[in-house]
Amino acid sequence: MPLEVLEQAQVELLDYRGTGMSILEMSHRSDAFEAVMAETEVDLRELLGVPTAYKVLFLQGGASMQFGMLPMNLRGAGRSADYVVNGAWGKAALKDALALGAARVAGSSESTSFDRVPQELDLDPNAAYLHYTSNETIHGVEWGSAPVPPAGAPLVCDMSSDFLSQPVDVSQYGVIYAGAQKNAGPAGVTLVILREELLERVPQGLPVMLDYKVQAAGGSMHNTPPCFAIYMVGLVAKWLKKVGGLGAIAQHNQEKARLIYQAIDASGGFYRGHAQVESRSVMNVTFRLPNEELEADFVKQSEAAGMVGLKGHRSVGGLRASLYNALPIESARALAQFMGEFQRKNG
Amino acid sequence: MPLEVLEQAQVELLDYRGTGMSILEMSHRSDAFEAVMAETEVDLRELLGVPTAYKVLFLQGGASMQFGMLPMNLRGAGRSADYVVNGAWGKAALKDALALGAARVAGSSESTSFDRVPQELDLDPNAAYLHYTSNETIHGVEWGSAPVPPAGAPLVCDMSSDFLSQPVDVSQYGVIYAGAQKNAGPAGVTLVILREELLERVPQGLPVMLDYKVQAAGGSMHNTPPCFAIYMVGLVAKWLKKVGGLGAIAQHNQEKARLIYQAIDASGGFYRGHAQVESRSVMNVTFRLPNEELEADFVKQSEAAGMVGLKGHRSVGGLRASLYNALPIESARALAQFMGEFQRKNG
Repeated sequence: MPLEVLEQAQVELLDYRGTGMSILEMSHRSDAFEAVMAETEVDLRELLGVPTAYKVLFLQGGASMQFGMLPMNLRGAGRSADYVVNGAWGKAALKDALALGAARVAGSSESTSFDRVPQELDLDPNAAYLHYTSNETIHGVEWGSAPVPPAGAPLVCDMSSDFLSQPVDVSQYGVIYAGAQKNAGPAGVTLVILREELLERVPQGLPVMLDYKVQAAGGSMHNTPPCFAIYMVGLVAKWLKKVGGLGAIAQHNQEKARLIYQAIDASGGFYRGHAQVESRSVMNVTFRLPNEELEADFVKQSEAAGMVGLKGHRSVGGLRASLYNALPIESARALAQFMGEFQRKNG
Repeated sequence: MPLEVLEQAQVELLDYRGTGMSILEMSHRSDAFEAVMAETEVDLRELLGVPTAYKVLFLQGGASMQFGMLPMNLRGAGRSADYVVNGAWGKAALKDALALGAARVAGSSESTSFDRVPQELDLDPNAAYLHYTSNETIHGVEWGSAPVPPAGAPLVCDMSSDFLSQPVDVSQYGVIYAGAQKNAGPAGVTLVILREELLERVPQGLPVMLDYKVQAAGGSMHNTPPCFAIYMVGLVAKWLKKVGGLGAIAQHNQEKARLIYQAIDASGGFYRGHAQVESRSVMNVTFRLPNEELEADFVKQSEAAGMVGLKGHRSVGGLRASLYNALPIESARALAQFMGEFQRKNG
């Protein structure tokens, strides 16, 4: 989270702009909060260039809740949806889709330990939609450009971990969804950007909170939304505009990733990137060392040097450097330097 | 929200207890956050006397999400559940249950505009569970003591608006659920307290985030939980322990309610309570004035006097004084006094 965003939240925590109340206790129906919500949506629309034919929803439950909501709402009775699987999150999305009905694997890189985005897709021309995960956080694999769905199948993207990290052409998509907690805000709110005409697919009789139509009609206020998390997304959006928008933040992120991948590539094999070069993630750099002992040492020594969170996800091991928007370039530089020093001592 | 809770959150916002990170950006798998989660659960268990055979879950989506999750998880194929309906929220819970399968109205006060809890219940001895709403926020109707379900049917309670406002015998219940935003914390987290043996009823094939068994097995961390909202619930729980626990807060709440109901009863009919005396809510006092013009004046003048949020819910009109835990007794006293003065000027 950018420091100045946290500082502003701190200043406003007890008394939000003269209302005498905290956002943490304010009614979601108050004028002050309705303004927060409206302004947050306007700023997100501006940053991403969201066309007017799209709804922006603020939901709960993380991207994982969308794994179920998506097929419930948009697959349609008796139809199948296509899933491209290039990591753990895409696999989890497919699992929920299969629990609820028909779904196909249109491409997978599981046989190569999710080290790339699938090179060739086998697309169902009648699929209700084509789902993919733009950046796989755990495996450090990212799509350079989105897969192209067959005509008539809207493209659906779990964009949780690269949402707001770079410009995106929203008009390519039927649905984009993202848990906020990587680049957009704190945990506790999920953004869903959805082409409005898709709401016609929503069947009758869904539980109220799982119904995109209800959520869209209620302006994400069918019941009390996660007010504070939405407010924080609003502060982050303002910060993104201030630092130059998504083009500027993308440059900043690419420079950080370049520094770390360079350290890997210059190590002569001491560091081995998990992802194939053409599928490398700008957000999450995953790499291994010659053995697990050295990996454990690396984690310990980097922590001692003030760099936290470098241990890879427990399901894959190794190391992972997450380079989300808020990470300063100096931190990436410090890590690259640390990598060089660690290799000199242990290589 | 209690002022000292907000003050502590403010102090800790940028650097949570020397970790150098904010709870708003911390990994939910960090030692610091896992300790927050564990301590919050321990404190809630202590406050409520939750038996060890119960799970405490921290979910998302508000109580309204439970309207659907509950029958999905606990009704069982081909079975019906009983619902007692004494206000808008109970009616909404019933609607989701009916959308997903069989449910019966075991009692309703809709014919008298939800002015009371139903006096006589018509219980299905084979019901999968008996659901009721302990306090109806909008109508200001509260149960003095819980309804008694037939043998074999667990009692399920939407306790959103009186959860943590008074002691409760958890062992009476199969499930208690509550959106946090009335007495327990900010919007964005829902507490579910559930007798563990009921998890045996959970069917296969539910979407992962809607599955109580998955949530229980993962310690509410199957995916990233709403960390900051949980942290705030933890601070509120500590505050409740400090002020004497649920017995002490119940006395405090009853005294506030007594002041307002006394002002109504002493007004000779100028103020008319919506709820019948025996069903009066300690949390939400709903009342009318002789006409809507006076009601609008009351709202305007009370706001000018610094008392916000007295307008009744848009669906029922009139006035509503919400007397949640954090409201100081002085505020209730000031409102009672204002009511007397307003009547003298306009009666």
